[in-house]
Amino acid sequence: MAVISLSRRLRRTPFSEGVEAAGVKGYTVYNRMLLPTVFRSVEEDYRHLKQAVQVWDVACERQVEIRGPDASRLMQMLTPRDLRRMLPGQCYYVPIVDETGGMLNDPVAVKLAEDRWWISIADSDLLFWVKAIAHGWRLDVLVDEPDVSPLAVQGPKADDLMAAVFGDRVRDIRFFRFDMLDFQGRSLAVARSGYSKQGGFEIYVEGGDIGMPLWNALMEAGRDMDVHAGCPNLIERIESGLLSYGNDMTDDNTPHECGLGRFCNTQTAIGCIGRDALLRVAKEGPVQQIRPIEIHGAAVPGCDRPWPLMAGGRQVGQVTSAAWSPDFETNVAIGMVRMTHWDEGTELDVVTPEGARAATVNEMFWN
Amino acid sequence: MAVISLSRRLRRTPFSEGVEAAGVKGYTVYNRMLLPTVFRSVEEDYRHLKQAVQVWDVACERQVEIRGPDASRLMQMLTPRDLRRMLPGQCYYVPIVDETGGMLNDPVAVKLAEDRWWISIADSDLLFWVKAIAHGWRLDVLVDEPDVSPLAVQGPKADDLMAAVFGDRVRDIRFFRFDMLDFQGRSLAVARSGYSKQGGFEIYVEGGDIGMPLWNALMEAGRDMDVHAGCPNLIERIESGLLSYGNDMTDDNTPHECGLGRFCNTQTAIGCIGRDALLRVAKEGPVQQIRPIEIHGAAVPGCDRPWPLMAGGRQVGQVTSAAWSPDFETNVAIGMVRMTHWDEGTELDVVTPEGARAATVNEMFWN
Repeated sequence: MAVISLSRRLRRTPFSEGVEAAGVKGYTVYNRMLLPTVFRSVEEDYRHLKQAVQVWDVACERQVEIRGPDASRLMQMLTPRDLRRMLPGQCYYVPIVDETGGMLNDPVAVKLAEDRWWISIADSDLLFWVKAIAHGWRLDVLVDEPDVSPLAVQGPKADDLMAAVFGDRVRDIRFFRFDMLDFQGRSLAVARSGYSKQGGFEIYVEGGDIGMPLWNALMEAGRDMDVHAGCPNLIERIESGLLSYGNDMTDDNTPHECGLGRFCNTQTAIGCIGRDALLRVAKEGPVQQIRPIEIHGAAVPGCDRPWPLMAGGRQVGQVTSAAWSPDFETNVAIGMVRMTHWDEGTELDVVTPEGARAATVNEMFWN
Repeated sequence: MAVISLSRRLRRTPFSEGVEAAGVKGYTVYNRMLLPTVFRSVEEDYRHLKQAVQVWDVACERQVEIRGPDASRLMQMLTPRDLRRMLPGQCYYVPIVDETGGMLNDPVAVKLAEDRWWISIADSDLLFWVKAIAHGWRLDVLVDEPDVSPLAVQGPKADDLMAAVFGDRVRDIRFFRFDMLDFQGRSLAVARSGYSKQGGFEIYVEGGDIGMPLWNALMEAGRDMDVHAGCPNLIERIESGLLSYGNDMTDDNTPHECGLGRFCNTQTAIGCIGRDALLRVAKEGPVQQIRPIEIHGAAVPGCDRPWPLMAGGRQVGQVTSAAWSPDFETNVAIGMVRMTHWDEGTELDVVTPEGARAATVNEMFWN
């Protein structure tokens, strides 16, 4: 296995010191920043995530901050999701599309105030898009990347661990809402959200200087809860149907193809840059869509490139994420399948680098 | 050392198969694509690059293609370099700046025709910036990422190897010019350029399907020339003063701070988005600038984060790239230094993770 060559360009995070001390074994790069991928082993991390509680360095979810009188107008230009009823204190998952309806990112928007937003981004330089849109449309906003680094606390014991550090008020935070909570005199946005289905929070750590103090406080408080450093887990996120931008979809895909049509209010999202293109898609429906795919047989190798999905010698889609699931005792996968073959129960072949395998289109993800 | 976790998001290239067969040992990620960093060892690769010829997978230099009646106008909006006299067949190194003069990328612009350009980008999603500027200004252009993957041939024997595959016409290509040359019936842009000072070419491989045939043809033709797979070499590029966007400068820096003032024609680059901000900088000069830094003593560790440059207990800059140079028998480095301390011969201390070291501001890079 090849090593990763470190350089300043692959940015460290305010939590890197803790990640290293916890014995990180693998990294990926996300928004030109280091994102841990494995601590003990992917399977061990998976087991532990489902049973205990983990602290995740997800600083790579960089923020695009938008401030100013035109902030809400600009936000609506970026996404086909109708934001008119969104209140400060809410988080919305918002597909971001270009003028053709192609997805540029699939972030979480955090509404801090009417005139102040954070966009907590997936892996692409959304900052460039937002800054240039603001410039070209001469909007009255400031757009930049603030010193804010999310730290996630995920797992069934997340509420207990967070309450030990932030107090019991954290238990009252509803899903995709955030509250401003105190840590060492600093007020931090704490949201009930995260890239797993095991429950938990994301802390928007404002100011890199309190990164390690917070990391250490969580590790200390969680000693009796078997807390451990963790990271987004490949197996768990596939079981849970959590899509990964760049893996499962790219700017070639519309939100509808990604099964995100419910986040597209093309009738009412007035001002959205990709609205015209998406109105057409919404009307006719996509011709391919994301599906849970079960791959039969023994554990598949790592999916580092699209694997063709075949039916009768013809390609009808591709698998883009796959892993052996110990809990479901099968290979769980995410694929994009053409409408002719996307019905539940359709039998396909998937071409892995180690040969073809039988696969089935499932109705639901596993978790 | 941590491994890199591969996934579709870290895109493979048309040459990945060849890179793997050649025994790649390390990767970085560049434009969300795999970029090899070491084959035999960084020092062995360095020796070989200076003596023989290497084939480099630099597909991660993605292209932003601009086509249409407003293509040249848009190009001039992106950069403070005056492009009016640039002819089709030329390549220009062009700092790209935002409205504040901050560098968004430092690519090479390839002028294919008056109404068709490629921007061969460094590590940031310049595509998003260019697309959004075109959208916001309602320019009559198409902007996208074509299926073009640069393959570099670098080293003193590059002319001979290229001539063996493309014919002797390749020898007539002047520095930063390109010619259209034939390979297996396909016409490819071949430029005399590349990210080393050992001489060589970059082939803009249009169509991923001919990636491996071309790789193999070069390897076959170069057998007597000791050709080997290689990659941008950390030591050689620092010796040569080749800056790395994301390492040595970011969007915090103006071109003038990066010593790129000669590429800024702020008086005549009319239409450039960052011109107003840069006129101010051009007039007053930058307060900090890139300098070659020699770090004394034994080999330094890898520079994976900025190392503070100190003078009398006060920080006056930072080192962002550093490596032991076998040829110059010292540690070569690139730093950003405040004007109070940037004069040749200034003695500073650099704080590495292994302790402070004496360092000197040099006048010139080594190669």
